[in-house]
Amino acid sequence: MDMISARELEHIKKYPNAKVISLGIGDTTEPLPDVVASSMANYAQRLSTPKGYRGYGEEQGSKELRKAIAERFYKDMGIKGTELLFGSNMSVAVQDPIFPAYIDSSVIIGQTGDVEKESGSYQNIEYMKCGPQNSFFPDLSRTARTDIIFFCSPNNPTGHAASWDQLEQLVKFAHKNGSIIVYDSAYAVYITDDGRPRSIYEIPGANKVAIEVSSFSKIAGFTGVRLGWTVVPEGLLYSNGFPVINDFNRIVCTCFNGASRIAQAGGLASLSSEGFKAVLSLVDYYKENAEILLETFDSLGLRAYGGVNAPYLWVHFPGSNSWDVFNEILEKTHIITVPGSGFGPAGKEFIRVTAFGHRENIVEASKRLRSLFSKTNEQ
Amino acid sequence: MDMISARELEHIKKYPNAKVISLGIGDTTEPLPDVVASSMANYAQRLSTPKGYRGYGEEQGSKELRKAIAERFYKDMGIKGTELLFGSNMSVAVQDPIFPAYIDSSVIIGQTGDVEKESGSYQNIEYMKCGPQNSFFPDLSRTARTDIIFFCSPNNPTGHAASWDQLEQLVKFAHKNGSIIVYDSAYAVYITDDGRPRSIYEIPGANKVAIEVSSFSKIAGFTGVRLGWTVVPEGLLYSNGFPVINDFNRIVCTCFNGASRIAQAGGLASLSSEGFKAVLSLVDYYKENAEILLETFDSLGLRAYGGVNAPYLWVHFPGSNSWDVFNEILEKTHIITVPGSGFGPAGKEFIRVTAFGHRENIVEASKRLRSLFSKTNEQ
Repeated sequence: MDMISARELEHIKKYPNAKVISLGIGDTTEPLPDVVASSMANYAQRLSTPKGYRGYGEEQGSKELRKAIAERFYKDMGIKGTELLFGSNMSVAVQDPIFPAYIDSSVIIGQTGDVEKESGSYQNIEYMKCGPQNSFFPDLSRTARTDIIFFCSPNNPTGHAASWDQLEQLVKFAHKNGSIIVYDSAYAVYITDDGRPRSIYEIPGANKVAIEVSSFSKIAGFTGVRLGWTVVPEGLLYSNGFPVINDFNRIVCTCFNGASRIAQAGGLASLSSEGFKAVLSLVDYYKENAEILLETFDSLGLRAYGGVNAPYLWVHFPGSNSWDVFNEILEKTHIITVPGSGFGPAGKEFIRVTAFGHRENIVEASKRLRSLFSKTNEQ
Repeated sequence: MDMISARELEHIKKYPNAKVISLGIGDTTEPLPDVVASSMANYAQRLSTPKGYRGYGEEQGSKELRKAIAERFYKDMGIKGTELLFGSNMSVAVQDPIFPAYIDSSVIIGQTGDVEKESGSYQNIEYMKCGPQNSFFPDLSRTARTDIIFFCSPNNPTGHAASWDQLEQLVKFAHKNGSIIVYDSAYAVYITDDGRPRSIYEIPGANKVAIEVSSFSKIAGFTGVRLGWTVVPEGLLYSNGFPVINDFNRIVCTCFNGASRIAQAGGLASLSSEGFKAVLSLVDYYKENAEILLETFDSLGLRAYGGVNAPYLWVHFPGSNSWDVFNEILEKTHIITVPGSGFGPAGKEFIRVTAFGHRENIVEASKRLRSLFSKTNEQ
């Protein structure tokens, strides 16, 4: 992202009067539902009264909120929530392309070995290539066994929501290998195709092999409020039979003192009937943005993946280099995107386009893209 | 703390009508200043408006708040702020006794070796004994060199605020050994004795050897709001000459997406002139509590340390076992304290008493303690 910001600054200097539109960083843009904002405002205001003041909360989060999450997102799957961290000496597999935080955090805790200069790959990471050629799901028969498998669905950046069949394969693979899946479902609420699971726990047996991490960021526009959760099922055991949740709970209680009570009040309000209805209509708004962008690329004969069950589009420019495409789009349309190579070696012919944005910017971006690529096509 | 909670539950079962007072966990009890709560409430409410909505903030925290902290707490020391995390393969020294989170987090990242059954000490941790015998400051001539030295002043649990001379010795020691001091100044605002530094950076040369961590929890009653900061001076270098702040910044930007914007709005308000005046009067309130408790123990002929430049009292019961003292006080006065042995081997003859509490509870606790120990003394 640093390189993109640098390019953006350079561009603004070169074209000081250009109206730059960012379809780059996946950041929410629309206001919070009033019921959610009011709930946090009231909670904050009451902290100035003797009756309303509260100090430390439960490290794992309030019982009420944990219950609300379990009921809203894990109904009939029998699940509770805490938060995420990992220890040492583990091998790691990731999708390629993938949001870089999984790899970067593995690098920081020293689990990745050296980077190979040419490919930009880390030696000790198993890259699971996902692209149009394999329906964005890795060939598990050629995937090495690892302790941890990071898996994000709907995927950032490809926008692919894994099918029931794909996730069943993944869970079987983890069972066979004694691996733990860390399943990132931060965009699950964008799934409208009922044939695709919203939680890994919809797959039988997943509660013995998977941790699920999620967040209010993209559900309820909490990118600036900050609130997330992790599900560690009691049935998830180490090879010695010891439950993972005990260690996880210890880490949470030692390293955190709980999430902000104000943010939790907002999270709770966003899961109430009124709040969740408002939240879903925001999700619809971003999904309509995605549709506008999908139609744009379609009409230009460009192949865009994702954007249906996810707020991201993954646009293919066969034979091109993603930084060249990024630069051309920026130079000629003043639109920021993200070059796919930033998400891993498999992203080198793609750019990621986000559907988070005000409608007028999305419509304007669509107009500029049509103008650019219809010209390009005519050449 | 789990054992204390268990004992509390047991006690409530045994005495269902007792009015239990907790002088155990160090949690703030008084309402936030209105200017602080209103600021957070307004920020939260404005998130529901198109103009007021904000997504991701700067990973390192808002420029405005970082500037306000630098001006309020590090004037003329030339300092900026971020957040804390550590990597692998480091040796660690801690004060004994000390708040257990330093040791527990070192255990979790696998840096401590095995625990010795009898003493409860970890093999690879250098325990720096601090007690009345050495003015609560370790004999550095007998302290082994380590990569990291955790140092908390004013100290939790002893309430000792290190003197200028003591911190000068510590900084020299770190320079000589190439160690990094992680200096926890969470209670610095409780220091009223001007002969004692409020920041490690008051000591010349500290900016080459020390990271300082702090928090709004005990300054502004943010235990439930959650907001803290870390100072990593640009002059702090690894032995290869590479600045620590670059790595630290990378960790913050990779593993966090910034602190809650609402909490930051509250932090900023608590550092405004009006806010900080209100905050200091809360600090005074807790300090008066500490004075009441100090007088109580004094008048009973019990030696209590701390409580002057800190919200904690560290009460000595020579020859006793801290759990026995804890149990006796609970049994006979229905007051929860913390047995000193929970803070390390050097705490075994002490209990920690917190000054955080409503005034009427502190006064009532004082009365009960007087009644218990004047009887004990008569025997």
